[in-house]
Amino acid sequence: MPLIEAYAAFKSNEPLRRFQFQNRKTGDHDVQIEIHYSGVCHSDIHTARNEWGGSIYPVVPGHEIVGKVTEVGPAVTKYKVGDSVGVGCMVDSCRNCFSCKNGTEQYCDNGSTFTYNSKLKGSETQTYGGYAKQIVVNEDFVLKIPANLPLDKAAPLLCAGVTTYSPLRQWKVKQGDQVAIIGLGGLGHMAVKLAVAMGAEVTVISRSNNKKSDSTKLGAKHYINTSEPDMLNQNANKFDFILNTVSSDLDLTPFLNLLKLDSTMVQVGAPEKPNSLNIFPLIFRRRRLAGSLIGGIKETQEMLDFCGKHNISSDIELISMEKINEAYERVVKGDVRYRFVIDMKSFK
Amino acid sequence: MPLIEAYAAFKSNEPLRRFQFQNRKTGDHDVQIEIHYSGVCHSDIHTARNEWGGSIYPVVPGHEIVGKVTEVGPAVTKYKVGDSVGVGCMVDSCRNCFSCKNGTEQYCDNGSTFTYNSKLKGSETQTYGGYAKQIVVNEDFVLKIPANLPLDKAAPLLCAGVTTYSPLRQWKVKQGDQVAIIGLGGLGHMAVKLAVAMGAEVTVISRSNNKKSDSTKLGAKHYINTSEPDMLNQNANKFDFILNTVSSDLDLTPFLNLLKLDSTMVQVGAPEKPNSLNIFPLIFRRRRLAGSLIGGIKETQEMLDFCGKHNISSDIELISMEKINEAYERVVKGDVRYRFVIDMKSFK
Repeated sequence: MPLIEAYAAFKSNEPLRRFQFQNRKTGDHDVQIEIHYSGVCHSDIHTARNEWGGSIYPVVPGHEIVGKVTEVGPAVTKYKVGDSVGVGCMVDSCRNCFSCKNGTEQYCDNGSTFTYNSKLKGSETQTYGGYAKQIVVNEDFVLKIPANLPLDKAAPLLCAGVTTYSPLRQWKVKQGDQVAIIGLGGLGHMAVKLAVAMGAEVTVISRSNNKKSDSTKLGAKHYINTSEPDMLNQNANKFDFILNTVSSDLDLTPFLNLLKLDSTMVQVGAPEKPNSLNIFPLIFRRRRLAGSLIGGIKETQEMLDFCGKHNISSDIELISMEKINEAYERVVKGDVRYRFVIDMKSFK
Repeated sequence: MPLIEAYAAFKSNEPLRRFQFQNRKTGDHDVQIEIHYSGVCHSDIHTARNEWGGSIYPVVPGHEIVGKVTEVGPAVTKYKVGDSVGVGCMVDSCRNCFSCKNGTEQYCDNGSTFTYNSKLKGSETQTYGGYAKQIVVNEDFVLKIPANLPLDKAAPLLCAGVTTYSPLRQWKVKQGDQVAIIGLGGLGHMAVKLAVAMGAEVTVISRSNNKKSDSTKLGAKHYINTSEPDMLNQNANKFDFILNTVSSDLDLTPFLNLLKLDSTMVQVGAPEKPNSLNIFPLIFRRRRLAGSLIGGIKETQEMLDFCGKHNISSDIELISMEKINEAYERVVKGDVRYRFVIDMKSFK
């Protein structure tokens, strides 16, 4: 079998560079996918640089994968050669625990197998992600991409899309709800599009006015610039739901005060350091702070179908594989509107 | 009208001492109550010592009040002279906002009138609490004490009881649920009794084994001593609900890991300093952290009726009014099992 061309991080403090690896033979239940596009998620950078600890080098990042099926195992029923498919953050889970049976494989009691930087179940074989020409995945963890969505712009749905869709659905955001999205980046811009499509009246919360006009274009009705301090006070007790997409160690206290009685703020960004939290805003309106991790497989398909129906995809900047290290620098500075996607077809 | 004998804090750093004040004339909708017993809540100490800021001296603390009706206004319909009644943390609210109409007067948008250290609506008249011989309260904020409960042991239900009952009900704790109570003090011992009566399998979490045998007597099935570090790991993902009654700036992270998928920890203690919170345990099982403040008036009556039905009251140590400063020192050291109650009849 030919070696697969890829890009990998070999050390936490070195740029990514070319890497080749052997993929497994397409098993009975496997789908072999030629990767056309791969989104660049901030988690890729955290893992490449070992900022969360636990990185196993070489790391081939990438969990926003779309491409075409090139081979299927004999027992595969859901996919055929030529189908447009996607792979998100997981490629397997135990399938037997409460979380898996509940359609929440991302919370698998025995540990999900992530698309990269994981070990395959019962094996020492490491998983390699989407910064590669090919991936082989069990069909149960492969998603269908709706025909009307452009493949490049659909790639970020596999992580940024479902990470924001899942909490909006789990906390039952509905028509007319006042929803605030903190941070307008890769996650935030998807959250705005999705919440607007669900009928919510959306407010973007950002620390400058730089993204105000974009926010309106994305469908948000209101904008809070937190560098104007009184803006937060003026919006106290306003929101039915807040999604915090910022993964820095922000003081959460002033944002919790924006929630109505019995309402929830969900954190999807994962800060490296603990946050400071004053409990009073939680106590004084019975407010809730929760976390949410990507979404289950069934929910990811539901999100893709929802995006197909509402013609939602990501705003992207298409790059070649060779530009990845430059792109990382720009992601860290927040300088991308709103997601880098690697064009794998240009990678020879 | 005669002056009312009371005890008050005059400064943040001085012991409480004797004080006299004029009560208002019993208005059309008012109930005049001769106070028989008054519980000693940690909030009394925080306010007497201005530890939360905003104390208006003199402060007459006490919001766990029981006594007998001695006079009713002409429009009063719910109470008559001689009734056993209680007053909790609030004596009024705006009655018009969403929170008030929702039966959650404790979250009144225009600010509840608290039993002490508040101003009466539209007036500069300060409210004085239960460390006094008498209180006059609008009948809508007066509660009925079930006939089978001893009045002294019922007093702490008015704050400690409802503060723990309300979140157990709001988060729908039910038969067979795994419930953990962090801290076995005034709040914690009530929480154990109430959760057991609701049919939950209760675990007490404490930082030593000092309260292990008490915990069993109160009805808890399990005990986690956090000074044995592996105990927390062994109980990861176990609980449907956790109530944290500890009001210190505890690191919440290891406790959040004890929750099952989609489960909630509620904080009822209000720390003076912000807590440190690592978001990962929230994200990795979609866990929730919430706060809760006492309970609404309707819910407080429901709690009292529940306690009457299940014969639940507080474990108390009865003291005379003169012993209050000594009692404060012991509360701060956690040296009371489990609530001081002042015997007002002994106060001449």
